[in-house]
Amino acid sequence: LTLSALPDVRPAPMRLYTMDAWVHDPSVLVDRDELRAMLHAAATAGGAQVIGEAFHVFPNGAVTGTLILAQSHLSIHTWPERLLANVDLLSCGPVDGRLVMAVIGARLGADRTDVRCLRRAVPA
Amino acid sequence: LTLSALPDVRPAPMRLYTMDAWVHDPSVLVDRDELRAMLHAAATAGGAQVIGEAFHVFPNGAVTGTLILAQSHLSIHTWPERLLANVDLLSCGPVDGRLVMAVIGARLGADRTDVRCLRRAVPA
Repeated sequence: LTLSALPDVRPAPMRLYTMDAWVHDPSVLVDRDELRAMLHAAATAGGAQVIGEAFHVFPNGAVTGTLILAQSHLSIHTWPERLLANVDLLSCGPVDGRLVMAVIGARLGADRTDVRCLRRAVPA
Repeated sequence: LTLSALPDVRPAPMRLYTMDAWVHDPSVLVDRDELRAMLHAAATAGGAQVIGEAFHVFPNGAVTGTLILAQSHLSIHTWPERLLANVDLLSCGPVDGRLVMAVIGARLGADRTDVRCLRRAVPA
């Protein structure tokens, strides 16, 4: 038995993707149904499975929504008064986080996005 | 009218707090009710207001839970097989994110925590 013959039992790397997206048209930021559909579409595009959700609409129309995924979670917070959306994806397993963020950024009509990826749960 | 007499209309800084917590006793990681109570208590301790939530228990007992806050969201994902919990708090406004994480870390009985804080939505 050689080392290379051992199965790879390391858990999939865990990553946190964050995106701040600035838009020029705030109407999408107060459209709960479109934001919900956008998150579902992006999660599916990235290979994630949606198993739960919670959404809230604030008095000014701002929306907070979270999808619980079999691979962790995907959330959005919109700030129409700041022409801004924050998106966070914690992923474990084979989720294409860059694609998830790209789908959301495009569908928001973002002029500018700041996307970051952090390794999580790195053993000591 | 001097500059210092102008009201401070800058929005509160937006921050993402992340914590990975390793425990020695996995029983808390499969206790949905305790995890839910823990998140509520930590959010309240940090000055946040809970306005929605979603929880899911996986077949192996692992729990994913998200609280929607008036100040954004607080989530937890547990991995009993890895003796690990991931906690994420996106905060806008006067939420004491360090305290939120400290409350959760203590109540999980964490042996080791890795807490980080990222500025979000920094204008170009």
